[in-house]
Amino acid sequence: MISYRTDEDCSAFDSPDFTGGLIVKILVLSSQLEEKHIAQIRKTAEEVKADLYFYGSEKDIPEENKDAEVIYGFATETARTSRDLKWLCVPSAGVDYITKPDSFANPDAMLTNSAGAYGVTIAEHMIAVLLMMMRRITEFHKAALEGRWIAPMKQRSIKNSRITVLGTGDIGRQFAKRAAAFEPAVIRGVSRSGISKEDVFDEMYKVSDLDKLLPGTDVLAMSLPATAETENILNKERLALLPEGAYVVNVGRGSAVDEDALMEALESGHIAGAALDVFKTEPIPEGSRLWNTTNLLITPHVAGNLTLEVTKDRNVEMFCEDLKNYAAGKPLIHLVDRVRGY
Amino acid sequence: MISYRTDEDCSAFDSPDFTGGLIVKILVLSSQLEEKHIAQIRKTAEEVKADLYFYGSEKDIPEENKDAEVIYGFATETARTSRDLKWLCVPSAGVDYITKPDSFANPDAMLTNSAGAYGVTIAEHMIAVLLMMMRRITEFHKAALEGRWIAPMKQRSIKNSRITVLGTGDIGRQFAKRAAAFEPAVIRGVSRSGISKEDVFDEMYKVSDLDKLLPGTDVLAMSLPATAETENILNKERLALLPEGAYVVNVGRGSAVDEDALMEALESGHIAGAALDVFKTEPIPEGSRLWNTTNLLITPHVAGNLTLEVTKDRNVEMFCEDLKNYAAGKPLIHLVDRVRGY
Repeated sequence: MISYRTDEDCSAFDSPDFTGGLIVKILVLSSQLEEKHIAQIRKTAEEVKADLYFYGSEKDIPEENKDAEVIYGFATETARTSRDLKWLCVPSAGVDYITKPDSFANPDAMLTNSAGAYGVTIAEHMIAVLLMMMRRITEFHKAALEGRWIAPMKQRSIKNSRITVLGTGDIGRQFAKRAAAFEPAVIRGVSRSGISKEDVFDEMYKVSDLDKLLPGTDVLAMSLPATAETENILNKERLALLPEGAYVVNVGRGSAVDEDALMEALESGHIAGAALDVFKTEPIPEGSRLWNTTNLLITPHVAGNLTLEVTKDRNVEMFCEDLKNYAAGKPLIHLVDRVRGY
Repeated sequence: MISYRTDEDCSAFDSPDFTGGLIVKILVLSSQLEEKHIAQIRKTAEEVKADLYFYGSEKDIPEENKDAEVIYGFATETARTSRDLKWLCVPSAGVDYITKPDSFANPDAMLTNSAGAYGVTIAEHMIAVLLMMMRRITEFHKAALEGRWIAPMKQRSIKNSRITVLGTGDIGRQFAKRAAAFEPAVIRGVSRSGISKEDVFDEMYKVSDLDKLLPGTDVLAMSLPATAETENILNKERLALLPEGAYVVNVGRGSAVDEDALMEALESGHIAGAALDVFKTEPIPEGSRLWNTTNLLITPHVAGNLTLEVTKDRNVEMFCEDLKNYAAGKPLIHLVDRVRGY
């Protein structure tokens, strides 16, 4: 069942001249999409007989289209002000920026995200930065940039390491699949339910078991959504529970890590290395202590950016999937619980 | 059967006071070994009733022990001068530095290497540097070292890439096993024989097929020994056969790559990135053009250094294995063909 709009545009549907379209007005904010993605969205919109408009970003939307029923893109301002918006699909996995109480003017607006599109790319990032730290490539690379050939340093290996994955969504699971090829001693998954959708972890635990797992964790890989429950989940006490020389990787949201406590644990040498792609404040302000913290590998929130083709392909595929569901009046697969926050 | 020494020391064996040892004189150059490794070697030497001496490095060997029959370590000078040396076990995989015509004073001396100990660690390095290049982490890391938060850049992925592994020894095979977890389009192995010891490649080819494979290669991963046949195997012509935007990783020996041609291909942008851990001249001289070549990721021959515990464990295990074989008069498993060079 198609969700009809209720304003005067719909009258066109009753006209004998009607040749499709005008049933819903869809805006796609497409600055990062390629031709093939645009073609795919166009085809799907034709199938569901929707009017389709492409804009580079939210600020390019003209006045007459601010009443769109469906938007695919980062349309936070429109969501906050338009009562016409019925469905917003964001191309991101995290939705913390759009699940505040005042994020939507329409209290019934549906929100879908693109969790599931980022697992592959973020998992690659996680393996890369973990190996860079364990194998001291960060330091070798720094020396090479300065034209210096330096002596070997003590290295560590994923092989025989004990890995704990905090957050077992698509990202955590794709990471576990890749990490397994490096023959770690064990890969443990930790989630709220203690259950994983796929059998990719050697052992599964609930978040309430976390403190028991930390002393036996060489690598803590974090891919959590930003919620009240995950805020500062890696705090000073939990950092102290990790064994001397442990590594931390965080690619979920910066809110999950107490940055001050982590910087202290890195400076003291208790934590051998941390790779953060997400931070409390992004961009990290100029002059922040983070920039100069020992053994902290900083990347500017790029683990899951949309430039990678496989990510874009999956992202667009997921939107088109749910566009068909929306048009057919079926539940949206990628619906976010706006209260729970993921 | 134990290989008896023929000089007067052996007379001790006939003495009624003899309590073991003196059958062979073994020197272990052990600066990088840990207690457990020394204990393991000691135990094996006792089993085969050999006299055992530990020195930090070759220059610490006293005059009276320069007649050792067996040495485990980097004893290039002793090999070149001692006619008493019957077996040299080097802790490296590559043996180019010890397979020159004048490398051994004793023409019948046996040489074993430690190929097989480095696959795990070097494969980890290869995955790390490949992802660093494809995901632009080299550039993000450089910016972070300068305290700069930079915008996302176009990234590439191992997923769906076509990988060609040139050299299918332990290193190439361990790399293929790990790379497979990242879901590349295909992993091709290339070796002299066209045969791989393990079924870890999607397709196997002979070196004579290389030129046909290069145009369909997104990632060329090289792990070859230094021989006359592999010298400059990646030359200007072959670099041109690779498609625009391909990546090169070399962890075998620097002799396999025409560095001038590679620098040119990187500067022109034809090759998107190259990660070299080995070079024609090591250390790279100060002021060399290599240091400033665009998209060249330099590491100072550390992919397979001996600091990693799993590497040392396997290295020592392999020597002890062959020490038992030597004492029993059996063929040495890790014997190198000194003419072929691997």
